[in-house]
Amino acid sequence: MSEEKQKQQQLPPTSAIDNLSSRRLENWFEYPVRVQPHHTDYTGVVWHGSYIAWMEEARVECLHSIGIAFVDLVALGCDLPVIEMSLRYHRAIHLGMAAVVKTRMIEVSGVRIIWEYMIESPHQQELYVTAKVTLVAVDRAKGKIMRQLPPDFKDALARLSA
Amino acid sequence: MSEEKQKQQQLPPTSAIDNLSSRRLENWFEYPVRVQPHHTDYTGVVWHGSYIAWMEEARVECLHSIGIAFVDLVALGCDLPVIEMSLRYHRAIHLGMAAVVKTRMIEVSGVRIIWEYMIESPHQQELYVTAKVTLVAVDRAKGKIMRQLPPDFKDALARLSA
Amino acid sequence: MSEEKQKQQQLPPTSAIDNLSSRRLENWFEYPVRVQPHHTDYTGVVWHGSYIAWMEEARVECLHSIGIAFVDLVALGCDLPVIEMSLRYHRAIHLGMAAVVKTRMIEVSGVRIIWEYMIESPHQQELYVTAKVTLVAVDRAKGKIMRQLPPDFKDALARLSA
Amino acid sequence: MSEEKQKQQQLPPTSAIDNLSSRRLENWFEYPVRVQPHHTDYTGVVWHGSYIAWMEEARVECLHSIGIAFVDLVALGCDLPVIEMSLRYHRAIHLGMAAVVKTRMIEVSGVRIIWEYMIESPHQQELYVTAKVTLVAVDRAKGKIMRQLPPDFKDALARLSA
Repeated sequence: MSEEKQKQQQLPPTSAIDNLSSRRLENWFEYPVRVQPHHTDYTGVVWHGSYIAWMEEARVECLHSIGIAFVDLVALGCDLPVIEMSLRYHRAIHLGMAAVVKTRMIEVSGVRIIWEYMIESPHQQELYVTAKVTLVAVDRAKGKIMRQLPPDFKDALARLSA
Repeated sequence: MSEEKQKQQQLPPTSAIDNLSSRRLENWFEYPVRVQPHHTDYTGVVWHGSYIAWMEEARVECLHSIGIAFVDLVALGCDLPVIEMSLRYHRAIHLGMAAVVKTRMIEVSGVRIIWEYMIESPHQQELYVTAKVTLVAVDRAKGKIMRQLPPDFKDALARLSA
Repeated sequence: MSEEKQKQQQLPPTSAIDNLSSRRLENWFEYPVRVQPHHTDYTGVVWHGSYIAWMEEARVECLHSIGIAFVDLVALGCDLPVIEMSLRYHRAIHLGMAAVVKTRMIEVSGVRIIWEYMIESPHQQELYVTAKVTLVAVDRAKGKIMRQLPPDFKDALARLSA
Repeated sequence: MSEEKQKQQQLPPTSAIDNLSSRRLENWFEYPVRVQPHHTDYTGVVWHGSYIAWMEEARVECLHSIGIAFVDLVALGCDLPVIEMSLRYHRAIHLGMAAVVKTRMIEVSGVRIIWEYMIESPHQQELYVTAKVTLVAVDRAKGKIMRQLPPDFKDALARLSA
C-alpha cells in the first residue's frame, strides 16, 4: 500500500507527464548491479546495508561520467561526507537477480548536494528501494564545511543538473 | 547549527522534561563499539555505511537482553526486515575511538516496530549519529507481512517498552 | 604437506611448460573493478578484506559467462562454500584506481574446485594481489559434502577448463 | 578428516604437552563474537569474508590489551598492512551463535609479524576456522617497508610473546 502511495507521489500532475517524465528520465544515471552472495543475508535477499555501497558506487560513477574523478576532488582538499540519508525498502532483491541503481542530483544549495535514488528491476517493472542522500563539501585540511564548492566542481555539477 | 536544531526537536515540552527525560533515559540499551580499521574509509573516519551494521548489532543485542534470541524468531518463521531507515550524521568518529550505540524501541504499532538511535561518545559529550529504523514482521513461509506479532514476541516487547 | 602436494599438481611437466602457459593465459576470466570509497580504509588504499568480495564476484560472473547461474546451483540443492583461501598482497590499490580481477579454475578434483586469482592494473603493468580459493560442493538439504558434482555443472566446468 | 589431521599437527610431541600446552594456552588472546544477520549470507551461516573483519578486530584488541593503541602506531607514522593471509574453514557458524576468535603472535622476524588464529565455539568443542596473517611494518610517509620496528612497539611485542 505504501508502495502505491509512494509511486503516486513521484508522478507529476497528469497534464505535465509527457514533457516532464521524458526530461526526468534523461537525468537519471543508471548503474547496473547483480546480487552476489556477499550482498545477501540469511534470508536469501540483499541485506539492508548492502544498498549503501551500491548507492555510493552509483554516485561516484555518475560524477565520473561527467568528468569529475572523486579522487581529484579529494586531491583538491574537498571531501563530500554524507550528512543525511534515508531509505525506503519496497521489495527485496534475491540472490542472482539483476537490478539498476538509478540516481540523479536533485538539488545543489550552497555546499549541500542532494541525490535521489530509485533501485529497480532492469525493465522498471519492480521498484525495490527509494532513497535520498545529502552530501556536504568539507575542507579536508581545516576539517570544516566549505563556504562554497570548488569552482570547477560547481561548473561540472551545473552541467549535470542542466 | 543543524545539530543544535536537531537536539531541540528531540526535547519534549519544557514542563514535562523532568519526568520524561529520566524515564526515557533508562530505556536506552547501550552497545559499546570501537572504531576498527575496517570501519573506516580513506578519510580516516567511520564510513557512513558501517553504522548500519552497528545499529543492527545493537538491536539484536537489545532483544537478546530481554530474552528474545533473534534466531528463535527466525525459527518461529518470523522475519523482521527493515522497511525504512534514516540517519543524520552529526560528527565523524575517528579510527581507534570508542563510542556507544544507544537504542530503544519507541513504537510498536501492529506489526511495525520503530527503533530510535543515538550514537555518542562514551561519556555523552559528543553526539555522532541519530537514526530511526522501522521493522515489520514478515511470515517467512508465506513471504507476507504478518497480521500480528507472535504472542511471545509481543509480550517480550511490551516488557521492553514498559 | 597437502600444500606441497597441491603445488606439485599445479606444475605441468617441464617439457610442456611453454605450450601450456600460453594456453592457460587465455583461460583467465577478467572482471573489472574500480576502487570506491567503501573499499578503502584509513590508509587510503583498499582494505585487505575488500578483495574477498571482488574475488567472489569474479568467480560468480565467470560461471555465469559459461551459462551457470549460481542461483540455479543453489536451487538444485548444491552449495559451494569456500573451504580454503590464501592471498598474497603485493601492492596496494588506491582510491579511484581501476583494476582487473583475473580468475580461472585450475583444478576440479572430485567435488573440490580450485580457483586461482591475479588482481592487476588494467594493462597488466602492476600486480596487486595473487590468491587461491578452494570450494567444495555441498548438498544443502543434507548439509554434507556431495559425492560428485551435479552432472550439468560438471559438464559446464569441463568446458571452462577445456 | 583433514580437521583431525590439522588438530594433530598443532599438538606438540606428547612428552612436552603439559608444559607447552599450558604456556601456549596463556598466550592466546580471546575475542568473543556473536553471529549477527549482517555476518551471514543466503546460506544462513557466516559469509567467508566476514571472518576477516573479526580477525582484524581480535588483533587490534590484542595489541590494545598490552598497551599498544593501533591509532598511536599510525600517529607514529607506522602502518601494519597485511601482506599474506590464509584461512581454512572447518565448520560453518550459524546465525545467532557465539564464538571466540583466539589469536596470538607466533613470530616477529625483522619487521614481519605473524599472527595465528583459531575460531572456536565458546567451550572449544568445535573448531570453525584456523588462519594465519602476516603483517609488515611500513613507513607511512615514505610508503616503504621499515628497516626495523619502532622501539616502543618492539618492546611491547616482546612482552606479548614472552
